[in-house]
Amino acid sequence: MLDRAYFEDLDSSDPLADLRNAFSLPDGLIYLDGNSLGPLPSHVPAVVQRTVVDEWGHDLIRSWNDHGWWDLAERVAERIAPLIGAPPGSVAVGDTTTVAVYKAVAAARRLRPDRRYILTDTGNFPTDLYVLHAVADQAGAEVMSVPPDQVLDRISPDVAVVSLTHVDYRTGRRHSIPDVDAAARDAGALVVWDLSHSVGAMDVDMSGSDFAVGCGYKYLNGGPGAPAFIYVHPSHQAGFRNPITGWWGHAEPFAMESAYRPAPGASRAQTGTQSILALVALDAALDVFDGVDTRALRVKSERLVADFIRLVDERLPWFEVVTPRAPDQRGSHVSLAHPEAGRIMAASIQRRVVGDVRPPNLLRFGLAPAYQRHVEVWDAVEAIRGVMESDAWRHAPERTGPVT
Amino acid sequence: MLDRAYFEDLDSSDPLADLRNAFSLPDGLIYLDGNSLGPLPSHVPAVVQRTVVDEWGHDLIRSWNDHGWWDLAERVAERIAPLIGAPPGSVAVGDTTTVAVYKAVAAARRLRPDRRYILTDTGNFPTDLYVLHAVADQAGAEVMSVPPDQVLDRISPDVAVVSLTHVDYRTGRRHSIPDVDAAARDAGALVVWDLSHSVGAMDVDMSGSDFAVGCGYKYLNGGPGAPAFIYVHPSHQAGFRNPITGWWGHAEPFAMESAYRPAPGASRAQTGTQSILALVALDAALDVFDGVDTRALRVKSERLVADFIRLVDERLPWFEVVTPRAPDQRGSHVSLAHPEAGRIMAASIQRRVVGDVRPPNLLRFGLAPAYQRHVEVWDAVEAIRGVMESDAWRHAPERTGPVT
Repeated sequence: MLDRAYFEDLDSSDPLADLRNAFSLPDGLIYLDGNSLGPLPSHVPAVVQRTVVDEWGHDLIRSWNDHGWWDLAERVAERIAPLIGAPPGSVAVGDTTTVAVYKAVAAARRLRPDRRYILTDTGNFPTDLYVLHAVADQAGAEVMSVPPDQVLDRISPDVAVVSLTHVDYRTGRRHSIPDVDAAARDAGALVVWDLSHSVGAMDVDMSGSDFAVGCGYKYLNGGPGAPAFIYVHPSHQAGFRNPITGWWGHAEPFAMESAYRPAPGASRAQTGTQSILALVALDAALDVFDGVDTRALRVKSERLVADFIRLVDERLPWFEVVTPRAPDQRGSHVSLAHPEAGRIMAASIQRRVVGDVRPPNLLRFGLAPAYQRHVEVWDAVEAIRGVMESDAWRHAPERTGPVT
Repeated sequence: MLDRAYFEDLDSSDPLADLRNAFSLPDGLIYLDGNSLGPLPSHVPAVVQRTVVDEWGHDLIRSWNDHGWWDLAERVAERIAPLIGAPPGSVAVGDTTTVAVYKAVAAARRLRPDRRYILTDTGNFPTDLYVLHAVADQAGAEVMSVPPDQVLDRISPDVAVVSLTHVDYRTGRRHSIPDVDAAARDAGALVVWDLSHSVGAMDVDMSGSDFAVGCGYKYLNGGPGAPAFIYVHPSHQAGFRNPITGWWGHAEPFAMESAYRPAPGASRAQTGTQSILALVALDAALDVFDGVDTRALRVKSERLVADFIRLVDERLPWFEVVTPRAPDQRGSHVSLAHPEAGRIMAASIQRRVVGDVRPPNLLRFGLAPAYQRHVEVWDAVEAIRGVMESDAWRHAPERTGPVT
């Protein structure tokens, strides 16, 4: 049986323990929702304020040059690249994750125009599914949506694009990137990975993958609605046709040419003028990952997840663990099923353990290796046990909210 | 002949004079580039800081509900609507202006699928032109780009969509919204207006127009790269098909349905999760316009522009005025031609008069009625006269920069 001392020992030998100090987390709060909104890195407010007051307010238009606003998106992209195993020049930053999915899938479809299907799974995040249907409708394809465990079998020469979220936002189930990429390569299909629930929490290697997108506001901690990113494998960059051609993706934006000429590399995936406030916050947030080995993130993530599940088995008999048991089949969050998920989470939050719910019956707990303490796993489970044993949850309001 | 006292008198009787106090402009700077990046409203830094520290940092995920992040974009949209003569529920906010153009033009094209042309003019902003070609390519249309003064004559039953920027970013020439709308209506074509160089500087009435987009960071002063907006006439809302269907445009985003169902009204033009930092800055910046009659903005804008042009005629014989002479044919900025535009602007900026340049030979001066003092027109022209008479500009570096 595990006890609290076990977790205290893990914290004392945690090579990433110091990263926690980079964050501004409220005292006494156990925040297990960084898979929805990453917490605030402590130095971000000063960076944002300087950008607003000194740059926008005082230096005004010349800040585009003097303070590097113009190439900020490209610098942020270069910082994200190593977190997903991508080479320089292969990532672009900007827009929302949904728009990034649209661009990547539409561009992939253009490279496989004569095939019938865009393949996805039923566990994909709804906004990804909506975009896939839009692209299919516009490009004369059909969306084939299959259960996650059937994806590999359904990759065939009829498939133009395979669009999958690496880690399922509900269950935490993880696809195998090498297996899907290999099957797609054999069938001549292209893969677009959505790394929103992976990047920043585990090691991801896109070096053998075609395309990817990801979210800036979950494990990258870039702030609410932070810009997204898009990855284009070097072999696809020359042929990448951004469906939304804008001046930020032009080879010479300030030539103000009337005809579009795409920029070299992944920069052609850019479109229009991005929010500088959003970009500086994400840029500063990425400081946390400077010098961090993504494999160390993964090792810690696996420990946190394994221990959480083991404690649920030992101490929370009220719940069914929905997340896969095998470490190589899951990401960095744990989902528990209970018919009263909403009320239980509300009561848990009253006891300062913050996760979220996914209708109809899932409680979701994100375990972020960058700032989570191991002992928080123990304390969270104990708090939830208290909720269940006291029946506190029966009096709590059902909680729903805008969390992804 | 005008003199400085004339302008001082105008300021003393300016009904909008107090608005200037809402902005944080550096002492002694004459900022005539608000058509590229609007200046900082003084209260924005505190609002942004509170959002970062108290909401993101302390309240974390529950800020989506507790601090109204979730419907912030819709509230900002409702504040922009009266600035363009649009009714409630007809504006959506988010993404970049380029993405907004893409959505509006693609949706308009879907409503006129069998016509051959997307009509625009050669003075349109390059990013708009790039997007039009993308939509045309994807939707089987052709872009017809004609000189601005030929647009009205070229609107025919072959035209699906007319896409124009209301005020030309280079020359300041303005299209007549009623004339273009009437010609399009007669021909059965749909019009998409880009109001980027109009909104916030003049009264715009979209009540008889089909679609529009606009920019948040020029005369709306929402900060660098602020979110864009899109307007959909009520009669087109039910048929508006957003080409980038995302969860923020879904009728019930948190139902997490696998099939897309569009939200009612213009909200269906939304796509993905927007930057909250960018939205709160724009929201706060719009406070400046609370209770301001847009016709008063237009009256002041016309006075500023007319006086600037008159002073150029009287005191700056080195320049050709490119902006139209007729008040109803121009917007709120003035463009002057000179072969050494770059060096002259650099020297002007050294004397604390900030405009910008458009290659190859245009100096551009934005005159923003919300914060410009009339006397700045006199002082700016005198500073430029000093530059020309001293030959200071011959030693200045040529200035180029990322300004739209």
